[in-house]
Amino acid sequence: MYKLAGELFPVCRSITGEGTRTTLRRIQKEIPHMIIHEIPTGTKVFDWTIPNEWEIEDAYIEDADGNIIVDFKQNNLHVVGYSSPIDEWVSLEELNKHLYSLPEYPDWIPYVTSYYKERWGFCVAHNQRMSLKDGQYHVIIKSKLFEGSLSYGELLIPGKSNKEIFLSTYVCHPSMANNELSGPVVQLELAKWIQNNKERKYSYRFIWVAETIGAITYLSRNLDTMKERIIAGYNLTCVGDERAVSYVSSKYGNTLADQAARNVLHFMYPEYISYDFLHRGSDERQYNAPGVELPVCSVCCSKYHEYPEYHTSADDMSLISPKGLQRAFDIYKEIIMSLEYNTKYKVNCYCEPQLGARGLYPTESFHRSSVTVKDMMDFIAYADGTQDLFQISNRIGVPVTRLHEIAQTLMAADLFSEVK
Amino acid sequence: MYKLAGELFPVCRSITGEGTRTTLRRIQKEIPHMIIHEIPTGTKVFDWTIPNEWEIEDAYIEDADGNIIVDFKQNNLHVVGYSSPIDEWVSLEELNKHLYSLPEYPDWIPYVTSYYKERWGFCVAHNQRMSLKDGQYHVIIKSKLFEGSLSYGELLIPGKSNKEIFLSTYVCHPSMANNELSGPVVQLELAKWIQNNKERKYSYRFIWVAETIGAITYLSRNLDTMKERIIAGYNLTCVGDERAVSYVSSKYGNTLADQAARNVLHFMYPEYISYDFLHRGSDERQYNAPGVELPVCSVCCSKYHEYPEYHTSADDMSLISPKGLQRAFDIYKEIIMSLEYNTKYKVNCYCEPQLGARGLYPTESFHRSSVTVKDMMDFIAYADGTQDLFQISNRIGVPVTRLHEIAQTLMAADLFSEVK
Amino acid sequence: MYKLAGELFPVCRSITGEGTRTTLRRIQKEIPHMIIHEIPTGTKVFDWTIPNEWEIEDAYIEDADGNIIVDFKQNNLHVVGYSSPIDEWVSLEELNKHLYSLPEYPDWIPYVTSYYKERWGFCVAHNQRMSLKDGQYHVIIKSKLFEGSLSYGELLIPGKSNKEIFLSTYVCHPSMANNELSGPVVQLELAKWIQNNKERKYSYRFIWVAETIGAITYLSRNLDTMKERIIAGYNLTCVGDERAVSYVSSKYGNTLADQAARNVLHFMYPEYISYDFLHRGSDERQYNAPGVELPVCSVCCSKYHEYPEYHTSADDMSLISPKGLQRAFDIYKEIIMSLEYNTKYKVNCYCEPQLGARGLYPTESFHRSSVTVKDMMDFIAYADGTQDLFQISNRIGVPVTRLHEIAQTLMAADLFSEVK
Repeated sequence: MYKLAGELFPVCRSITGEGTRTTLRRIQKEIPHMIIHEIPTGTKVFDWTIPNEWEIEDAYIEDADGNIIVDFKQNNLHVVGYSSPIDEWVSLEELNKHLYSLPEYPDWIPYVTSYYKERWGFCVAHNQRMSLKDGQYHVIIKSKLFEGSLSYGELLIPGKSNKEIFLSTYVCHPSMANNELSGPVVQLELAKWIQNNKERKYSYRFIWVAETIGAITYLSRNLDTMKERIIAGYNLTCVGDERAVSYVSSKYGNTLADQAARNVLHFMYPEYISYDFLHRGSDERQYNAPGVELPVCSVCCSKYHEYPEYHTSADDMSLISPKGLQRAFDIYKEIIMSLEYNTKYKVNCYCEPQLGARGLYPTESFHRSSVTVKDMMDFIAYADGTQDLFQISNRIGVPVTRLHEIAQTLMAADLFSEVK
Repeated sequence: MYKLAGELFPVCRSITGEGTRTTLRRIQKEIPHMIIHEIPTGTKVFDWTIPNEWEIEDAYIEDADGNIIVDFKQNNLHVVGYSSPIDEWVSLEELNKHLYSLPEYPDWIPYVTSYYKERWGFCVAHNQRMSLKDGQYHVIIKSKLFEGSLSYGELLIPGKSNKEIFLSTYVCHPSMANNELSGPVVQLELAKWIQNNKERKYSYRFIWVAETIGAITYLSRNLDTMKERIIAGYNLTCVGDERAVSYVSSKYGNTLADQAARNVLHFMYPEYISYDFLHRGSDERQYNAPGVELPVCSVCCSKYHEYPEYHTSADDMSLISPKGLQRAFDIYKEIIMSLEYNTKYKVNCYCEPQLGARGLYPTESFHRSSVTVKDMMDFIAYADGTQDLFQISNRIGVPVTRLHEIAQTLMAADLFSEVK
Repeated sequence: MYKLAGELFPVCRSITGEGTRTTLRRIQKEIPHMIIHEIPTGTKVFDWTIPNEWEIEDAYIEDADGNIIVDFKQNNLHVVGYSSPIDEWVSLEELNKHLYSLPEYPDWIPYVTSYYKERWGFCVAHNQRMSLKDGQYHVIIKSKLFEGSLSYGELLIPGKSNKEIFLSTYVCHPSMANNELSGPVVQLELAKWIQNNKERKYSYRFIWVAETIGAITYLSRNLDTMKERIIAGYNLTCVGDERAVSYVSSKYGNTLADQAARNVLHFMYPEYISYDFLHRGSDERQYNAPGVELPVCSVCCSKYHEYPEYHTSADDMSLISPKGLQRAFDIYKEIIMSLEYNTKYKVNCYCEPQLGARGLYPTESFHRSSVTVKDMMDFIAYADGTQDLFQISNRIGVPVTRLHEIAQTLMAADLFSEVK
C-alpha cells in the first residue's frame, strides 16, 4: 500500500482530467474488474453541473532578474487548482492578491482550489512570501479548461445476497499523502482481500471518485439501487498515519454502519476519538444528505481538519507509513467481518444446555473455576433470538468475531440455530 | 412596566374584592379588548366553591396607653388575608396566638392568608413582637365577608390558526412586587407586543386571575376549548428581579412549552436553574393536574420559595427593576418567536445544493475557510423533513430565530420547502 | 431462622440423597402444606438427565502410621461431592492429583463437587497439604451412586388473583451457612408470614430445590403455568450476613421484579451494590434462560463469588447472624408488600382537590408551611391513571408502602379511584 501511494504521489490530480485518469488506470491494473466511467462535462447531476476538464502544462513566477522563484514543477500545490491561464507582469501589490500562504506554518505550502469560479493564484510558503521585494513579477500559468469528462472507478463484487456493503474514497487530491492517497490504496487492498474471500455473504460496491462532484455524480446515476441494497457504507479518507484513530458518525449515528464501527473500535482501539456528524467534511456529507439518507459513516486515523498538516505540503509521504495503512486496513477488515458474521441466534433447548456432557464445560466445580467458559455462557444467556451479535457483543463485552467462533462450536453441537 | 407595577403596589389585592377589580381595570386601560369576568361567590368550580368577597376598611392593634402599634394602613400585609372582623381587648398571651412573625428575618412582615377557614390575625416584624410587654391590647379589624363575585381578566388575540399559545398570571397578592406584580405587568407588555405583531401564526389567550381559585374557575369554564387548542402555555410569576433565571418543568417535562423554554434559555441564559415539577408552586399545579393535562410550564427570575424575601414585606419595589422586568419580557418574546417560527423544512434537491453558484458559499476552498457558512450547511444536513426547528436547534447549536432567518434565505433561493 | 440454620448446618446435603430429604422434612414440619416431590433419577429434564443418588457413609485419609489425617466426619467438605468409592494405598504424588486446597486461604477447606463425571477427591486446608510428607497414604471413601430420586419442596399459597409471586432457594449445599442455609430459612419465614397474611392479592409459589438440576427439573414440569402466572420472582441465596446488600439484575433488568427490588433497596439501603446479569451465578441463570424468560432477579447480602469465605469451610455459622437474616427478611417483606400494593390511581376531580375542606391540608397559608403535605400533593399531581406506584415512587421519592397509606386516606375521602 505504501509503495503504491509513493508511486502515485507526484501525479497532479484534480476533480477531472488526466491526473485522475492516470491514477484510476494504475488502480485498475491491480483489480482488472474495476470499470472506469467517463461522464461528459456539462452534465447536470442533481443540483450541480460537471465542470470542464482542467489541464496544466506549466506554471511559475519569475522575478525581474529572471529567476524562477515559484515553480509548479517543484510542487503541484504551488498553483491554485483550476487556475485559469495567465502570462503577465504584475506588481508585488497585485501579485499579493493572488498569493495564498499560512502565517501559522510559514514553511508549508497550502492547498487551495477554485473549481466553480474562474481565478488564478499561487500557493507559497509564508516565509518566502515575506521575503519578496517590491518590483515586477512575471506570472505564467499554462492551463486549459475544456469540454471532456469526469472519471471514476467502480467495482462490484457479488456475494450470496444482493444486499451490499459500500466503500467510497476519492482520487482528486494532488500531491498529498494522508489526504488523500491513503484512502485509495487502503480501499484497493480491501477490494483485493474481499475478491479472495469466496465465503462472503454480502455483495460489495467500491468507488473511487472525485470528492463532492464525483460522489454526487455517482449518486445521481445509482441512487435508487443504492437505497435498496446498501446496508452499511464507509467513506475512506485519512487512513494512513499512526496517530489518532477516529470515527465520524452518520447523520443520526444510529445506522448499522455506525454500530459496526463503534463496536469494532471499542475492542481494537478503545481510546478512539468519536466525532459527531457536525464534524463531517468529506463525502459522508453527500451520502447522508436529505433525500439520499444512506447508512454511511467513516473511520479515519488522524481526521481531516484535525491535524496541522491537513491540506498543506506537509501532508507528504513521511506523514503516512506502512504500519499506519495496515492499521486502518485491519480495522476495516474487522468491521467487514463483523458485518458478515452479524446475525441472530437462538438456543435450541430450554434452560442452560448441559455443556459438560459435550466437553464444553469443566466437569468439576471448583472455587471460581467457571471463568474460562464465561464468554460462552454469557452468549448463551442472551441467545434468545431477539438480539443481534452487535447487541450481544456490546452487552457482554466480547467481539463479534469471537462470538461467531463460539456460535460455530455451538451450532456443531446442535445447541444453536440461526434465526432468519 | 416598572412604573405601572409601582402604581399598583399599594392596592390591597386578594382572591376576590375591590383590590383585584381596581388592578384589572387599570390593566384594561392599556388593552381595552380585555374582558373582565365576574363569577358569583358560592359557585361550584370543580372540587371547590368560590368564597365570599372580603373587604377591609381598617385594622390596627392599640396598646393600653392608646398607642397604635400595628397599623394596616402602614402596610396591608399586617393583616392575615381574609381575617374576620374583631373589636376586643385581649391579653398578650391571647394576642400571641394570633400573631405571625419570622424569627429568621426579624425586620420583615410575613404574608399570611386564611381563605378557607374563619380566622383573624396580624403579621408583624419579629423584633416588634419580641418587644411587646405584658398587658392588654385592643385588636380591631374592620372587615366584611359577603356575597359578591370573583373577578378575572381575559384577552384573546386571534391568529391565522386557532391553535393557541396561553399565558397566565395572577392578581391576588397585596403589596408585594416580584410575587406578584411582575407577572401582571410583563404579561400586559407581551399582550401589547403581540397585538402589534400582525404576522402571528397562532392565536393567544391571556388571563389575569386569582391564584388557585381563579385558575380553577377559569378552567372549569374553558377546559374543553383549552385542551383542544392550546399547544404551549406559561405561568408568569416572579419575573421582575435581576438575580437567577429559572425554569419550572411541566408534569412530565416533555411538552412543546418545555422544549421551547429550555431551548431558548440554553442560548440566552445557559446558566439558568432547572427545577423539576416537584418544585412547582403556582398555577402550573392546576394546568398540569390529572384530567387537565395542559402543556404549561414556567420561566421565572428568582423563583417563588427560592429567595429569602418571598412572601414577606421585603418583596417590595426595590427587589424588582426595569432591567429585570425587561429581561423576562425578552425571554418570553424569544420563546414566542421560536414557537411561531417552529416548523419542519425539507431541502428541494438530492445531495448538498450548490450554494456557491447562488452566492451563498465561498467559491475558493482554503484551509478551514468554510467556517462562516457552517450554520447553514448544518441546517441543510438535517433539513430532511423529519425534524422540527427545536430538534435541529438543539442538535446543531443554533437558535431557532437564527434558523428561521436562514430558512427564509433558502426558501427565497428555492432550495427549501416547508413540510406541512 | 438462625436456630434452624444451626440445626441443619451439620447435615451433608447434595443435589440428591438423604441429606436433602432430611432438610426438606425439617422445613415441612414448619409448613405442613409444603409437598415433597420425588423425581426418579435418569429422568430427562430438558437438556439434562437427573443423576444417580449419592450416599456417603464415611471417608478419610490414613497415613503410613495409621493416623487419620483427613476425616469426613470432622467436616463434610473434606470429600469432593459425588466422589466415587475407593479403598487404596497411593503415593503422595498420586494423592496430590486428588487433593484440592486454596493457597490464598491456607486454613480453609474448599467446597468442590463433580456431579457429572466420575471422580474421587479430598478437599483440605492448604497448610495441611503442604505439611504432608512423602510416603504412602490410605484413601477410603465409602460412597454409593445408585438409582433413586431427586427431591424438592413446593408450597403454593393461593391469593385473590391466580397471578403469582415466585420465590426459589436451594437445599443442595453441605455445611455452609450463608451459601446456603440462609436462603432456605429466610424463605421459610417469608412463607409463614404470607400464610398468616390473609389479605394477600397475589398467589405465592415457593420452591426449595437443588441448584441448577433442581431448578431445571422444576421448570421442565411447570414452565407453561409459570410463564402464564408469575409476575415477579426472586432467587434467595446468600441472605444471612450483615455486610453488603446486593442486587443481581434479571437478563434485561426491566422486569417488575427488578423494579420492585431496586425501588425498595433505594429507600431501605441506598448504598446497595447493583450487579449486572453478567455477574449472575445461581438459579436466576435458569429462570432467565432463553425460552424460559421468567421475571426473576435476586437480592442478596454479601453475594456469592464476592466474599472471600464463599464456597469454603469459613462460610460457617459465625458468618451469618440473626440480625443479618432478619435484615434480608425485612427487605423481601417490603418488596412483597410493594408488589401487593402496586396499582394505578386516578384523582376523581379536575384540578387539585380542596384538601383543606376535608381536614387534609393546613387552612392557613404561611411561609413554606405546606411542606408537611408535600408527599400527598406530589402523589395527587401524578395520579393521572397512567403511572403505577413504582413509577410515582421513583419520581417523587416516597416509598410505595407510604403511597399505599396515602391512597387509602384519599380513597376514604372519595378523592381517589383505583384504575383497573
